[in-house]
Amino acid sequence: MRADPFEPAALVCDDFLGGQVRLWQPRDGYRAGVDPVLLAASIPARPGQSVLELGCGAGPALCCLGARVPGLALAGLELQAGYADLARRNLRENGHDAVIWDGDLADPPAQMRQRSFDHVMANPPYFEAERRRGADDSGREMALAGPTPMEAWVQTAARRLAPRGTASFIQRAERLPELLAAMRQHLGSIELLPLLPREGRAPRLVLLRGRKGGRADFRFHSGLVLHRGTHHEGDWDSYTETVAGILRHGTALTFG
Amino acid sequence: MRADPFEPAALVCDDFLGGQVRLWQPRDGYRAGVDPVLLAASIPARPGQSVLELGCGAGPALCCLGARVPGLALAGLELQAGYADLARRNLRENGHDAVIWDGDLADPPAQMRQRSFDHVMANPPYFEAERRRGADDSGREMALAGPTPMEAWVQTAARRLAPRGTASFIQRAERLPELLAAMRQHLGSIELLPLLPREGRAPRLVLLRGRKGGRADFRFHSGLVLHRGTHHEGDWDSYTETVAGILRHGTALTFG
Repeated sequence: MRADPFEPAALVCDDFLGGQVRLWQPRDGYRAGVDPVLLAASIPARPGQSVLELGCGAGPALCCLGARVPGLALAGLELQAGYADLARRNLRENGHDAVIWDGDLADPPAQMRQRSFDHVMANPPYFEAERRRGADDSGREMALAGPTPMEAWVQTAARRLAPRGTASFIQRAERLPELLAAMRQHLGSIELLPLLPREGRAPRLVLLRGRKGGRADFRFHSGLVLHRGTHHEGDWDSYTETVAGILRHGTALTFG
Repeated sequence: MRADPFEPAALVCDDFLGGQVRLWQPRDGYRAGVDPVLLAASIPARPGQSVLELGCGAGPALCCLGARVPGLALAGLELQAGYADLARRNLRENGHDAVIWDGDLADPPAQMRQRSFDHVMANPPYFEAERRRGADDSGREMALAGPTPMEAWVQTAARRLAPRGTASFIQRAERLPELLAAMRQHLGSIELLPLLPREGRAPRLVLLRGRKGGRADFRFHSGLVLHRGTHHEGDWDSYTETVAGILRHGTALTFG
């Protein structure tokens, strides 16, 4: 019988934002990297506003956003009960009074459907389920290759937004066309920020933001460069100054 | 009464590719800049293949492509009779045996519909007609803000392609979402090359290429930087070495 990846002895506690955030995650399951941290840093939330994350996992993005912007009303939706429980614990232990719903974004719980939010964010699975062979851990597999089409993520985000609210997504660059097509259907004033591993390199990830009811032209921003230099220079920290500020000190990530 | 912008005395002869191509264009109408030259340089055509340009204007892209790749079967479609006549003259005077059809891409002439091509290219108008006030010259206005939706450009291109043929477009970065959405409907193996005015700047133009029946993942390439330095440095040539090679010596523009 497979061990429970969420039992206390199977969890590890990882630091984010230079220790401002501490997060319990399953040692052998899906563990957050820099992606949810970058996503959270990009949300243009002001104190007192409300933010929903779709597919919040163990809560890294919500915890990082809560650490940067005080007084937010934080909410999350998570399909996998083990991660939803971890998110509740992580948000509580990081000092946030958040609500985490168990549920599927294709059929969200009634409590979530009764609310609207100033901002919605999501880090949808990076691979399509049908294109990928199963990994060992089904929780990790779900986080990497969920069964929900990209359009459902965008549509659910748009439905839960207050007028003029923003929806933000981080995703693999290879899936830009389907994400952008879905955003064009449900949102306006779309902005694209490519994330370049190094100066002059092709982006591996993209950040996309849209506004409910927005009518501005699409904006294609210059790429945010993650690492200094032209190649991998060993194990020490090679983040650019801007990105180190985001990841280590919790500064905001601006598109402009 | 307005003077005819296509009468002989109203034409000027411009050099392209360092004088390899000479092109008659109306002095006071729409005149080609670097955009069709970059488009032509990006077409992966091999000697002996066939190429169609939709909205070929006075023929700059066809003439530049013909100068770089020998033995192509070149064809163009142009809505405005004055430009179609100029394209015929320009292709002939540059030594190419091309066919230029008068017509609308939303309802192409039967001769064009009977053929298929290894490559299709287009530099669709950069502004939507309904969003733009009229310019003085209606021919220039048509070239800048044509009435045909982006999807019709992509659909017509896809219909005229042979299996595995490529369709290439150059367009303002602001219109990436609608162009990409149309390409997703009609083509596969889509590739995006942003054209950056300078290193680290946001792209103003994008090159997009798709393949009929292609099944490869979308590829988001690193940007092609047009100008050296961080700001405009006066009137002398500031093109990067790669771009100067494309514009002055007729070398190919590669996505990879």
